[in-house]
Amino acid sequence: MSVTHAKGFTAAGLEIGLKSSGGKDLAIVHNLGPNQSAAAVFTSNRAKANPIIWSQQVIADGLASAIVLNSGGANCYTGAQGFRVTHSTAEAVARKLGVSATDVLVCSTGLIGDQLPLETILAGVDAARPTVDGGADAALAILTTDSRPKTSVIDRGSWSIGGMAKGAGMLAPGLATMLVVITTDADLPAHALDAALRSATRVTFDRLDSDGCMSTNDQVSLLASGASAITPTAEEFTASLTELCADLALQLQGDAEGSSHDITIETVNAATEDDAVEVGRAVARNNLFKAAVFGNDPNWGRVLAAVGTTTAEFDPYAIDVSINGVEVCRSGEPGEPRELVDLTPRAVHVRIDLKAGAEHASIWTNDLTHDYVHENSAYSS
Amino acid sequence: MSVTHAKGFTAAGLEIGLKSSGGKDLAIVHNLGPNQSAAAVFTSNRAKANPIIWSQQVIADGLASAIVLNSGGANCYTGAQGFRVTHSTAEAVARKLGVSATDVLVCSTGLIGDQLPLETILAGVDAARPTVDGGADAALAILTTDSRPKTSVIDRGSWSIGGMAKGAGMLAPGLATMLVVITTDADLPAHALDAALRSATRVTFDRLDSDGCMSTNDQVSLLASGASAITPTAEEFTASLTELCADLALQLQGDAEGSSHDITIETVNAATEDDAVEVGRAVARNNLFKAAVFGNDPNWGRVLAAVGTTTAEFDPYAIDVSINGVEVCRSGEPGEPRELVDLTPRAVHVRIDLKAGAEHASIWTNDLTHDYVHENSAYSS
Repeated sequence: MSVTHAKGFTAAGLEIGLKSSGGKDLAIVHNLGPNQSAAAVFTSNRAKANPIIWSQQVIADGLASAIVLNSGGANCYTGAQGFRVTHSTAEAVARKLGVSATDVLVCSTGLIGDQLPLETILAGVDAARPTVDGGADAALAILTTDSRPKTSVIDRGSWSIGGMAKGAGMLAPGLATMLVVITTDADLPAHALDAALRSATRVTFDRLDSDGCMSTNDQVSLLASGASAITPTAEEFTASLTELCADLALQLQGDAEGSSHDITIETVNAATEDDAVEVGRAVARNNLFKAAVFGNDPNWGRVLAAVGTTTAEFDPYAIDVSINGVEVCRSGEPGEPRELVDLTPRAVHVRIDLKAGAEHASIWTNDLTHDYVHENSAYSS
Repeated sequence: MSVTHAKGFTAAGLEIGLKSSGGKDLAIVHNLGPNQSAAAVFTSNRAKANPIIWSQQVIADGLASAIVLNSGGANCYTGAQGFRVTHSTAEAVARKLGVSATDVLVCSTGLIGDQLPLETILAGVDAARPTVDGGADAALAILTTDSRPKTSVIDRGSWSIGGMAKGAGMLAPGLATMLVVITTDADLPAHALDAALRSATRVTFDRLDSDGCMSTNDQVSLLASGASAITPTAEEFTASLTELCADLALQLQGDAEGSSHDITIETVNAATEDDAVEVGRAVARNNLFKAAVFGNDPNWGRVLAAVGTTTAEFDPYAIDVSINGVEVCRSGEPGEPRELVDLTPRAVHVRIDLKAGAEHASIWTNDLTHDYVHENSAYSS
C-alpha cells in the first residue's frame, strides 16, 4: 500500500516509455487534504538536478499538493531546456489535479546528461489515474536498477505513515539520499514535519553509504494530509517516522547494486558522535575492505588502515575490532584468530571500540563485488 | 641498475621465505659514502606500521647508512613484539655492514596484523651479499602483487639518481605513498635532500590515487653518497628528482592491481591548486566513474556528480568536461555526443575546466575492474 495507506492520498504508476529497459516509469502521488503540509530534504551535492532546484522552491512555503517522479532520466546537467521540462511537468500535473504548479514537487532518476522527452511526459501525466489503490504501482514506477520495490507502513490505529523508496547505486548521503516519498494522515504543520524529517533522516538514510557516491538527484519528501484529524506528539511522530525511514533504508541496503553482504559498521566509545560517523564512513568507503568482505576474508588490517585516515580521537594501540562477534584485534594487536570469523551470512557486523569516550554510531554499507563492477560498467545509468 | 646506478651504493635482494607466493622478499641498500645524507617522507595514516615508527626516528638527524626492506608482511598492528622485530632487523643490518643501527631505515609491506618471523629475517640479513650489481635483485625483492619491478635512472653525466618502487594496491597518498628507495651520488646535505624530496613527491607520488586506500606502511627514502663529488644546484637536483619520481609513479599506475586503464584527471582554470587537486581526487575516488571507464563507457555525468561533492570554487552551469579530446559537456550542458569518445586505449584523459581561475593539477588513477575485486577478495594481502 505504501504511500496510499494513510488516509487522504491517491497515487498512480504507469509505463510511458522513458526507461529503455521497459516497465513503469512515471509516478504521481496526490494529497487530497484537508491539509497540504509538507517537508523535504535534498542532496547536498552542489551539482543539483533540475527537479531538485525546482522542488527546493516548491517546499519553501511548507506546502505541497502532489509529487511527480520519473525514472529513465535524471534531468541533470541538461541546462535551460532541462529546467523547462521539470517546470512543464509540474504545470501539467497541477492542471490535471486542479492544484497550483508551485505546490507540485518533482523527482527524476536515471542517466545524467540526457534530455527527457517532454511530450512523452506530458502524455503520461494526462494518462495517469491516481487512485487510493495506486501505491504499489507508484512504488514500481520509481525503480531503476533496483530488483524489487521498497515500501513500508507504520499504522498507529488512529493515524499512520507509509512510504516508498528507490535506490540501488550512487548510494551515499549528503543530508538526504535516494528518492523517497512518505505520506501521513497525521494533522501536523509544516514546521513539525520538517523537524521530524530532519531528525529521522539524520540517523537513517544519512547513515547509509553503499558505494560512497553522492547523487545529484536525492530527495526525501514527506506529505501530510491531516485526514485522520489526529495530532500525535512530536516525540511520537518522530519515533514512528524514524522507524519507517530505518526500515526503508535497510531495504535499500539489502538491494544495493551487485551487493552480496549487508555490512553494519558500529563504532562505539567514540569521543563524539561525529567521530563515530567519520570512522564508520571511512571504513564503509574502503574498497580493499569491501572487496575482502565479498571474498569472505576477515581482513581486519584494512579496517584499521581506514580508521587511521580519519581525524577521530583514538589511540591506534588501544583500539579493539571485532567482526561477527570475533575480537580479531585487541588493543591494537592480533586478538582471536581471523579464521574463526564466519563471513558466509549476508549480514556482517564490524564493531570498532575507539576507547575514547561514550558516543556511538552505525553506518550501513555493502561489499564491493564483481556484480557491482559489472552493473556499473556495462550500462549507462 | 636502479638503486646501484649512482656511485657509492651496493644492494642485495634475496629469497628468505617470507612471501607465501615465493620469490625474493628481502632487500638491503647500503650507502658506502663518503656522505650518509638522507631524507624520507612517510604515510600520513595515523595507523603507522612499526617500520614507519622506527624510520621516522632514524631520519630525524638527516643521516642513513642503509635501508632494509621486506615483502611478505607489513608488521603493522603487531604490538610490542612487532616493534622488536623491526628494531632487531635494523641491528642485524648494522652489525653486518659495520654501521649504527640508528642509521638503518626499515620498510615492510604485506598483510597487516601478522607477526614477521624474526629468526627468518636475521638469517636472511646474514646471508645477504650487497654488491654494485645488486640493484635489480633488490627491486624484485620489494614486490608484492606487482607484476613487474619498477626502476628508473636519470644520469646527468657527472652525477646521477636511481630509484626502485613497489606498489600495486592500497595506492593513495598522504604525503608519500608506497615503498620507494632513491639513491644519488650527488654531494648534498640532508636539508637540501629533504626540500627536494618534499617538492618532488608533492607533485608526483602525492598525485597518484589508484584506489583511494591509504597505506599504513608508505615510505619514500632518498640516500645520497656524495661519491660523485658534484653538488648540483637545488633547481637542477629537484628537477631531476621530480622527473625520476614521476617516472616511477607512472610505472606504479601502469601496474596497479587489476587495472585496465590509466586515467589522468586534469583540472584546469581552478581558483587554487588545492581546488584542482580536490576535484581530481574526488573524480579519482568515484567508483561509479571508475567502473564506467572499465566498461569503456564515457559516462560524464558521474564526473560531474563527483565534482559536485567538493568544496572547490566552480559554477555547475559553467563547467566543461572533455574525455579523450571530446568535449562531452560544455557550460554544464550536453556537448559533443558521448558516442564519439574512444575508451579502448589504456590511456584515458579527462579534462575538467572549472573556469574559476588559472591554477591546474592532474591526478593519476585507474579504473575499477573485475580483476581489482578478484585480487582483493581472493587473497589476504
